[in-house]
Amino acid sequence: MIAFEALFNISYGLYIVGSGDKNHGNGFISNTVFQVTAEPPRFAASCNKNNYTAGFISSTGFFSVSVLRQDASPDLFGRFGFRSGKDIDKLDGMQVKYGETGVPIILNDSIACMEFTVVQTVDVGTHWLFIGELLHAEVLDDTNVPMTYLYYRQMRKGVAPKNAPTYIDRSKLAPKPHTSVFKKYQCTACGYVYDEVIEEKKFPELPADWICPSCGSEKEDFVEIIT
Amino acid sequence: MIAFEALFNISYGLYIVGSGDKNHGNGFISNTVFQVTAEPPRFAASCNKNNYTAGFISSTGFFSVSVLRQDASPDLFGRFGFRSGKDIDKLDGMQVKYGETGVPIILNDSIACMEFTVVQTVDVGTHWLFIGELLHAEVLDDTNVPMTYLYYRQMRKGVAPKNAPTYIDRSKLAPKPHTSVFKKYQCTACGYVYDEVIEEKKFPELPADWICPSCGSEKEDFVEIIT
Repeated sequence: MIAFEALFNISYGLYIVGSGDKNHGNGFISNTVFQVTAEPPRFAASCNKNNYTAGFISSTGFFSVSVLRQDASPDLFGRFGFRSGKDIDKLDGMQVKYGETGVPIILNDSIACMEFTVVQTVDVGTHWLFIGELLHAEVLDDTNVPMTYLYYRQMRKGVAPKNAPTYIDRSKLAPKPHTSVFKKYQCTACGYVYDEVIEEKKFPELPADWICPSCGSEKEDFVEIIT
Repeated sequence: MIAFEALFNISYGLYIVGSGDKNHGNGFISNTVFQVTAEPPRFAASCNKNNYTAGFISSTGFFSVSVLRQDASPDLFGRFGFRSGKDIDKLDGMQVKYGETGVPIILNDSIACMEFTVVQTVDVGTHWLFIGELLHAEVLDDTNVPMTYLYYRQMRKGVAPKNAPTYIDRSKLAPKPHTSVFKKYQCTACGYVYDEVIEEKKFPELPADWICPSCGSEKEDFVEIIT
């Protein structure tokens, strides 16, 4: 028996994984970046095979990791987590530096960054597990703490995109009792749920310039959930 | 250039990974357990090739993961993190249940547990990366939060054992200014450093029954660090 709620007890950080070069690059929000050996320092990053960035990592053999700080802008989650580089140039207007290997490294709201050369690509089913050897690591800001996935879920009420290794189909979770007088509204861009019971404010009463705290989408992008 | 301090910004949880059977089993403290695909749910766990548990995982093809709660006993870190199953029976006296596959699942101070069947074993150098498909997941305690590696390092001042993927040789870190009137003492079992400046108490003034907050070793197991 699998109680999917149990998986929420696995701890993760939140990162932007970047790849490409000065002419064309991309990045995506990842929570699965982990060190797997100390000598030499090697990391694993799980990346959906359909992610646009996967192609860049495979073709260049390099990727970067930017560690997001706890108060990272919701806009970054919308841009890098819920939109595809096939549709927009995600790096346009971003603070980007190019590493020793030429990969783009996203600096917005990042407290540390790293650069890797791919030493192995492991097929784990729907995802590639890129094993990267650490070439460069740098602290960008030592006054902030990293955002954790727990913080993103609990404080920001953020959810994982469908391409994420930790995506959970909500129908698999045990139903919770709710007060039906209050309603729930969901962001059509990122899946964030606004719950009137938790927020103690009716959704229609929110100001017109209110934005999704998870991805920065506008109020009109929300739809009522019929339960 | 690699600033190893940057690696402290990668977030991890803390787990006991167990394997074996009812006759003989073992477990070790791991911080590298993470989900790599959602459909089907597959996880990766990094395990030093010298770890006694690695042999059990290879021979049985199964492993368990117990998620440690934030206030997990220091004794567990000493037993499962800094001692070897080659020397002691780590499961002796522990609260253990046996999963569907027969693997031991350690219940002490655990808030969730999972059971996996190994579908791939990846050689990443000094470590095996075991890719396990989730067979069972269970919430054991929903009143506590999981311990993170950040909490273990900052609040418990715990360190990684030499076999850990995230072990950092302290000589690689940038030196920090210190007040030489005060001394530092290190636990010979786990490497925890008692710093008189931070603790605002001289080590010799600690009571005789004081134990290492990281691994539970006795006061007499500490030695003065000559810097």
